[in-house]
Amino acid sequence: MKIKVTQEKLSKALNAISRIAIGKATLPILNNVLIRVSNKKVSLITTNLDMAVEDYLPVSESEDGVITVPAKLLAEFVSNLPKGENIEILSKDTKVTIKSGKYSSTINGTVADDFPEIPEIDEKKSVVYKIGVDEFKNSVNQVIIASSNDLTRPALTGVFFNTYDKTLAIAATDGYRLAEKKIIEKVESEVKAIVPSSSLQEVLRSISDEVDEIEISFNEDLVRFRLGDIEIVSKLIDESFPEYQKLIPKNNNISVALDREELVRVTKLAALFARSVGGSIVCEAITPDIFSVKSIANEYGENDSRIETSVDKPGKINLNSRFLLDALNALEEPEIEFEFSDRVAPVVLRNKKSDKYTHIVMPLNS
Amino acid sequence: MKIKVTQEKLSKALNAISRIAIGKATLPILNNVLIRVSNKKVSLITTNLDMAVEDYLPVSESEDGVITVPAKLLAEFVSNLPKGENIEILSKDTKVTIKSGKYSSTINGTVADDFPEIPEIDEKKSVVYKIGVDEFKNSVNQVIIASSNDLTRPALTGVFFNTYDKTLAIAATDGYRLAEKKIIEKVESEVKAIVPSSSLQEVLRSISDEVDEIEISFNEDLVRFRLGDIEIVSKLIDESFPEYQKLIPKNNNISVALDREELVRVTKLAALFARSVGGSIVCEAITPDIFSVKSIANEYGENDSRIETSVDKPGKINLNSRFLLDALNALEEPEIEFEFSDRVAPVVLRNKKSDKYTHIVMPLNS
Repeated sequence: MKIKVTQEKLSKALNAISRIAIGKATLPILNNVLIRVSNKKVSLITTNLDMAVEDYLPVSESEDGVITVPAKLLAEFVSNLPKGENIEILSKDTKVTIKSGKYSSTINGTVADDFPEIPEIDEKKSVVYKIGVDEFKNSVNQVIIASSNDLTRPALTGVFFNTYDKTLAIAATDGYRLAEKKIIEKVESEVKAIVPSSSLQEVLRSISDEVDEIEISFNEDLVRFRLGDIEIVSKLIDESFPEYQKLIPKNNNISVALDREELVRVTKLAALFARSVGGSIVCEAITPDIFSVKSIANEYGENDSRIETSVDKPGKINLNSRFLLDALNALEEPEIEFEFSDRVAPVVLRNKKSDKYTHIVMPLNS
Repeated sequence: MKIKVTQEKLSKALNAISRIAIGKATLPILNNVLIRVSNKKVSLITTNLDMAVEDYLPVSESEDGVITVPAKLLAEFVSNLPKGENIEILSKDTKVTIKSGKYSSTINGTVADDFPEIPEIDEKKSVVYKIGVDEFKNSVNQVIIASSNDLTRPALTGVFFNTYDKTLAIAATDGYRLAEKKIIEKVESEVKAIVPSSSLQEVLRSISDEVDEIEISFNEDLVRFRLGDIEIVSKLIDESFPEYQKLIPKNNNISVALDREELVRVTKLAALFARSVGGSIVCEAITPDIFSVKSIANEYGENDSRIETSVDKPGKINLNSRFLLDALNALEEPEIEFEFSDRVAPVVLRNKKSDKYTHIVMPLNS
């Protein structure tokens, strides 16, 4: 195996794929990157068994072959080599020599036979969507915050891609809050699939300025994200996602329009005092024109901040301040709607002008 | 107690002094900042018992009084209030009310009687030096890296300020390396004092763009750093510092001039391979024109990088790559001198043109 490539291209590709190369004591080869050269096509592949990342590398010279080497060691080595120079990688048995000008190293590799098999999407049976990179990145960030880390409820540790009314929406919930974003309208084909949040995080990290569009392909048990030369294939979570549409209240009768930055500020102020009571704060709509956010009096003291707005109907609700801040950070517009009915039904938060994004937060017991 | 002050000034002062306010289970008042108003002078004070930070605050209105409140809570609260507005702080018994426009909070304070006494420098008995902020910051950073974290050898956990030949020098060593910088020439008064590295770190963090000069005053057991409106008083370490001048080799007979960035690069490359052997690398001067840095062959592979330079006399030495990199980062000039004699005597590293800074690194056994 031989490749010749510029330092910049190789370093960029290695950095993109080496993040997930984290070996386990029982399977140290997961530390490695598989370098495969075949018909002048070079690909670098890493996997953590749940997902695999593959990057195609444009090279100036190559000889066919395949080998695996420790990914992070190779990535750091190459990133320290001088920019603007060519790097030659040559393997002989399991010895991999890297040369660049007067620098030369030999890394001990491992034969590729020991590398886990990389799952592949069956193109014929797959459902494919395309979406702009910025829209995808924003939307996933808006939703993924509501997903759970609780491994005992695997369905909640992912983001649910699902179509209804000819729309592709993504949703996540941890049982305390729920976020939904409609990402593509007028879709032809249907999908219901839970993508692990950890895989989506890796997709977000792999987005570079050079890519405008992401292609997402679903199989029965796999999803593939294609971003330019990078392909990320991940297992799906084989569980059913809660019927989340039923959780979004339809009859909230108190609706207050609020300046988002102002609400962020008063929530942060109240949250400082709410630390010793688990972040619990009280939001209250007071007729005719006050929205108040209070921390409950405790050992540190107490806090009451008011926002002027128009209030038709009074009401009060206890919320976790962190969940409210997460929701406010995910909303984009300067003005938002804060909708609730009583102390029991969830709060619904929406942008004032656009209805693509919905965030609901369960109240705390008062 | 009452003060009225702009958000910017108060927030800046609170951030500067609240870092060291870390309460202990046995003494929770160390979480607090002492706010003292006397004769229209307002000062904010925090302490961790080893050191105290005091900041004088310019206010537009005040009424005398003294109170303590949780420093980090107050700092975060004030930093979230709107910029450009005035803040009023008012204490009544132990209730401290903070008002800014429509925001209002009450923080539970603690009476000042419980606050530890802040040690003060005896001005009459003190030795005083003045030094430019940039020179001080650079010099301390060059030296403090060689100080130790080993609490069983307290003298080595500080930076030694000492005068000899009418020069004030600072030095630190952890037993494996030693750094010395001459910081003021033609000094009149003498000092020998070990300042805790942790206190110096706090001084470095307190440096702002508004201050040009630092005044350093030593008493028998205290040091005070004055930076504009901020004063930091620290206990000295009551131990004798090793006679470090004797540790600097005078007869190293191999001296190689090297490009500093080039040596950093080859050391980093070798260090990647040296991880499994505790960072051990081999530096070798080869006549007539090679300086080589090698990692010792190990499970990952091996690495050999060469720098072209002029070599009169051959020699070889084993070093810890991290210590060599620390030294190279502390040196400033593009060209440095690497001096050694055999495998046993320490390496001396200096800038090629200036002799104010000396860094020595003990060799590893080979």
